[in-house]
Amino acid sequence: MTPQETQQDLPRDLRIGVIGVGRMGADHVERITRRTKGARVSAINDFRRETAEQVAASAPGARVVDSPEELIAADEVDAVLITSPGQFHRDQAIACIDAGKPVLCEKPLAMNPADAYDVVRAEHASGQRYVSLGFMRRFDAEYAELKDALEAGEVGTPMVLNCKHRNAEVPPGFTDAHMVYDSAVHEIDAISFFLDEPATSVQTIIPRSTENAPDGLHDPMLLLFRTASGVVVTDELYVNTGAGYEVRTEVVGSRGTATIGLDISRVTTQQPGGTWGGSVPADFRPRFVAAYDAEVQAWVDAIAAGTNIAERSATAWDGYLAAAVCDAAEKSLTSQDAIEVQLEARPA
Amino acid sequence: MTPQETQQDLPRDLRIGVIGVGRMGADHVERITRRTKGARVSAINDFRRETAEQVAASAPGARVVDSPEELIAADEVDAVLITSPGQFHRDQAIACIDAGKPVLCEKPLAMNPADAYDVVRAEHASGQRYVSLGFMRRFDAEYAELKDALEAGEVGTPMVLNCKHRNAEVPPGFTDAHMVYDSAVHEIDAISFFLDEPATSVQTIIPRSTENAPDGLHDPMLLLFRTASGVVVTDELYVNTGAGYEVRTEVVGSRGTATIGLDISRVTTQQPGGTWGGSVPADFRPRFVAAYDAEVQAWVDAIAAGTNIAERSATAWDGYLAAAVCDAAEKSLTSQDAIEVQLEARPA
Amino acid sequence: MTPQETQQDLPRDLRIGVIGVGRMGADHVERITRRTKGARVSAINDFRRETAEQVAASAPGARVVDSPEELIAADEVDAVLITSPGQFHRDQAIACIDAGKPVLCEKPLAMNPADAYDVVRAEHASGQRYVSLGFMRRFDAEYAELKDALEAGEVGTPMVLNCKHRNAEVPPGFTDAHMVYDSAVHEIDAISFFLDEPATSVQTIIPRSTENAPDGLHDPMLLLFRTASGVVVTDELYVNTGAGYEVRTEVVGSRGTATIGLDISRVTTQQPGGTWGGSVPADFRPRFVAAYDAEVQAWVDAIAAGTNIAERSATAWDGYLAAAVCDAAEKSLTSQDAIEVQLEARPA
Amino acid sequence: MTPQETQQDLPRDLRIGVIGVGRMGADHVERITRRTKGARVSAINDFRRETAEQVAASAPGARVVDSPEELIAADEVDAVLITSPGQFHRDQAIACIDAGKPVLCEKPLAMNPADAYDVVRAEHASGQRYVSLGFMRRFDAEYAELKDALEAGEVGTPMVLNCKHRNAEVPPGFTDAHMVYDSAVHEIDAISFFLDEPATSVQTIIPRSTENAPDGLHDPMLLLFRTASGVVVTDELYVNTGAGYEVRTEVVGSRGTATIGLDISRVTTQQPGGTWGGSVPADFRPRFVAAYDAEVQAWVDAIAAGTNIAERSATAWDGYLAAAVCDAAEKSLTSQDAIEVQLEARPA
Repeated sequence: MTPQETQQDLPRDLRIGVIGVGRMGADHVERITRRTKGARVSAINDFRRETAEQVAASAPGARVVDSPEELIAADEVDAVLITSPGQFHRDQAIACIDAGKPVLCEKPLAMNPADAYDVVRAEHASGQRYVSLGFMRRFDAEYAELKDALEAGEVGTPMVLNCKHRNAEVPPGFTDAHMVYDSAVHEIDAISFFLDEPATSVQTIIPRSTENAPDGLHDPMLLLFRTASGVVVTDELYVNTGAGYEVRTEVVGSRGTATIGLDISRVTTQQPGGTWGGSVPADFRPRFVAAYDAEVQAWVDAIAAGTNIAERSATAWDGYLAAAVCDAAEKSLTSQDAIEVQLEARPA
Repeated sequence: MTPQETQQDLPRDLRIGVIGVGRMGADHVERITRRTKGARVSAINDFRRETAEQVAASAPGARVVDSPEELIAADEVDAVLITSPGQFHRDQAIACIDAGKPVLCEKPLAMNPADAYDVVRAEHASGQRYVSLGFMRRFDAEYAELKDALEAGEVGTPMVLNCKHRNAEVPPGFTDAHMVYDSAVHEIDAISFFLDEPATSVQTIIPRSTENAPDGLHDPMLLLFRTASGVVVTDELYVNTGAGYEVRTEVVGSRGTATIGLDISRVTTQQPGGTWGGSVPADFRPRFVAAYDAEVQAWVDAIAAGTNIAERSATAWDGYLAAAVCDAAEKSLTSQDAIEVQLEARPA
Repeated sequence: MTPQETQQDLPRDLRIGVIGVGRMGADHVERITRRTKGARVSAINDFRRETAEQVAASAPGARVVDSPEELIAADEVDAVLITSPGQFHRDQAIACIDAGKPVLCEKPLAMNPADAYDVVRAEHASGQRYVSLGFMRRFDAEYAELKDALEAGEVGTPMVLNCKHRNAEVPPGFTDAHMVYDSAVHEIDAISFFLDEPATSVQTIIPRSTENAPDGLHDPMLLLFRTASGVVVTDELYVNTGAGYEVRTEVVGSRGTATIGLDISRVTTQQPGGTWGGSVPADFRPRFVAAYDAEVQAWVDAIAAGTNIAERSATAWDGYLAAAVCDAAEKSLTSQDAIEVQLEARPA
Repeated sequence: MTPQETQQDLPRDLRIGVIGVGRMGADHVERITRRTKGARVSAINDFRRETAEQVAASAPGARVVDSPEELIAADEVDAVLITSPGQFHRDQAIACIDAGKPVLCEKPLAMNPADAYDVVRAEHASGQRYVSLGFMRRFDAEYAELKDALEAGEVGTPMVLNCKHRNAEVPPGFTDAHMVYDSAVHEIDAISFFLDEPATSVQTIIPRSTENAPDGLHDPMLLLFRTASGVVVTDELYVNTGAGYEVRTEVVGSRGTATIGLDISRVTTQQPGGTWGGSVPADFRPRFVAAYDAEVQAWVDAIAAGTNIAERSATAWDGYLAAAVCDAAEKSLTSQDAIEVQLEARPA
């Protein structure tokens, strides 16, 4: 046996094309290049050509291509990661399906439920499973352990889910709609993930606002969800705490409760002046960097295994559910009434 | 100076008459007899004469009297503690006011808002302050520290209050109305206590129920309150957890959050089999016994100081507020709509 | 039955004489006057007459007496509380025994083991039990729960005890000997309390010191104790932390471990700037005020019950043990060797 | 640009040879094959040929070689991971140095200080840095955060370090020497890691043992270390707790304390029967699997970067220090005296 022969036996790295290399996309390129086993970035597209070239320079073997279409079609692209602006996700995801290439699309799947449903139908029509949606929390270690505990029946039947989503601050221009589509969307997917059923109605509850909120933003905000089996979900969104990034989930079940997110820091200190405690992560990146790593690795591993979508990954259907629930939540922002989620039938 | 002279200088114990010596009343008699400084039980009434005599036997100097009216009027009764069934509270409290005697009345103040308002008016008409209402949590060390933190501005302006009230189990026959009048009533008063303003509306939210709930009881149940300044309060009531008695409160403010009730047990153990943790108190008595002690002591001290009502004690007006909010909550049980709390004007 | 007859049935308050009303003694006078059920202060002595009169003015029925001897002998003194400087404790305790009066003596029982043993012998010779020693931690709720857990066998056989004793700061002039006699003495008694056997040897371990220690003080300091059954106790003393007052105890047993003192504050807050946590009490008084209350109440109750010494109270023998172990610890300060504790036989 | 050209630009995977594929080695092969970016296993040796072939079958491109010497010399081996039994580590590590190949050697570096020092000298003589030692805790997230906190001066000058090392159980035949060489060795390296100076003396303290200890094992055991700057380290080793695997470290500094290892589980549950808490990991693998991943990745990245040894990795010198301290600890097992650590000079 010679080294040359050995080399031929080796599994070839999955060649990933990345569309959109702003902050999130550039992070993914770095991740794949440095940490994701069995994959490399082979092609990059961004509407800012210079940005694409800068990012490509840090990813050996990656070339810049002129358009998303060209990238999706390229021979050296085995799979596509979409981190372009949300308004392009629908068309790019469908193009991947048409090209027969697995795709990991950052949320949202589309800008509205109808467009998201188009992706669902396109994938269904293809007869294959291609689409993973980037709800990375499903790959967070805490989320995974809570999911394990629920599947093991440790708390019996879930009846109430209490979620909290807190940011230190948001930029000016962050609106109530951003609160729904950028923040609440994660808990909306978490409902599907933890309960195996989506929200079927949503009601917005508006408390008095913090003096630190940008003009026009209602902060904090509560969303109240219900599911078909009768689970009630409270979601507290508070994005100008001044403190840091925090995500907590409590499941109240018929045989116990389970909580994640209480232990915020690994090192507990006690300091002069008479305080004890720890620090809160500044933003979502330190909190969820390991989840992004795990998500992309699981996606690559699933493609290598021929299933294309990792076991606990969000799918096109989950993306459609999130779009439909967000749409109902946005309607509820004005009326503050409970709004039913409108859903098309799930393709068999 | 002789010992005899000294004896005459000594403050005389406050002589308390106790109406109703079921479990709660008997606890109070024992408390006053063994632990409350500056007070003793001088008279006891109960509609079961034998019970009254048994309890009186354990309280040196206490005699059994034939009726609540006689007890309230008795010369050797300086102040009255009402632990009779709720339907008698209105009349007995008013009789105490008429007799010019300070009274500590266990909740509820009356069976409905109108009756409670009668007590408010009677006290107001007397030109004096006589009525303390037994919301003992105001004297719990955790509650007191959270109140202190709020008054010191440690979390800025409160915007959201999250309450949890959990019991291991409730007896058969416990209904949704009991959930409101026996359980939620404590958080309803806590709203007034922590925020210095009562709930102005209440909405019932009914999740699916635990299989351990008695027939006809919705358990868990969420109540959603609002206050005039716009604070939103979520109250999770869950009374068949199987685990134990737990009360948690989180205040979400514009400059931080503060939480009580997370540290359930003083001793943390680690045990064979790979678990760590502590125990949850079985019922409200171990959890709040020190609060009852502090409440009764503060009442006795306030009478000695001539103010009749301790600084942080609930008053007749607080009792009326609780009755009015409970009334709205009960109306909301059927409709599950947000019900406005109807309030009479507060006497000047 | 007339009120007069009733009055005669009432138990008379225990009349306590207090010797020494510096800060600690004045606290006890206030405690007994305001909070201890069934007792009042009847006589006060202090070598500063003016101080005695100031304190007596706040305690109705208390007169100032000219000497400890007169106080102990006074008819209106049923029991004695000794809070004078330590060098007088031996003689005053023995005088109480000779007078046949129960006495609660603040630590130390005496200034050296021989003097402490004199008290033990005097009490033994009297044929009665008179002496309680003021190790108040035995009446702290956490200590009591840990003792309960040990007695219930929750951790099996204790093998290691880890203690921590931390202060925010100590005054100039605080020496290594103070570290032993003022700080470590509490853990030395805790060994007897938790393990039902005293330390039989002690070794001093001196780490590098904090730059915040007064000249000549070794801070932090470790003491290593052993007991007859082979339990090893580590005691970390650190009295210039700058943070606050903290006491922790962990028992390592053959079937689990149990810890107290980890949960420092009741209210957990999260604050701008990205921190979470709580506060540490400034000194021992907020930490142990409830323990002092419970200690004095238990002493008064024990006298009323005719046993003179509360069930879990430290006794003269415990005071002798503490003196003997402190003596060995002081010897070890110089040699840093393990020093055997020298004990006289316990009177049968 | 053609895909072929691109392929030539790609960094080639580091080809790792693994010596010894028992449980630990097989774990590493799986790790490198599935998770380590930029590396693959190219050669495997084990004295049990069948085992080697089984493991190689799961690692594409790995061939079985006949001897450690052949593996170290093989062209297709760029770097070596040694997981053979400890008695072979010295010779194999030196062979790697002689071959000019980076090596990651599981602890111990050698069976005694003299042999370990041979490796230090061999590497020094080579004029290059080749040897990383597998103290994986240095790559644990908690350890890293505590190290960061110390380097940032968050607790001032460290004065005391308290370590705990607990296992659920150990097999029959586990002796006091195993306690030193298998368990304490990790804390011995942690001293160097956290304090940037090794232990200079060690004293064994033997408490009474648990009834669950195998015959002849002293369990629990305390080791007391000192460093040149005067830091005192207590290390509690307890390996038959029945509970699970636990590692805790507290640093006591002149401006605060910092603790890791208190938060044992991510999910906190509350369960029927009145308990709350979480689970303790069964053994070291779930606790430290992420640390092993990070360690091997950092090693591979360091080789790619040309430094051969990751920034926080243990080195040959650290391995020698651990051997010298373990040797002193073993001597102390008999005498229970403080034994000075004997150290050769560190090569410049």
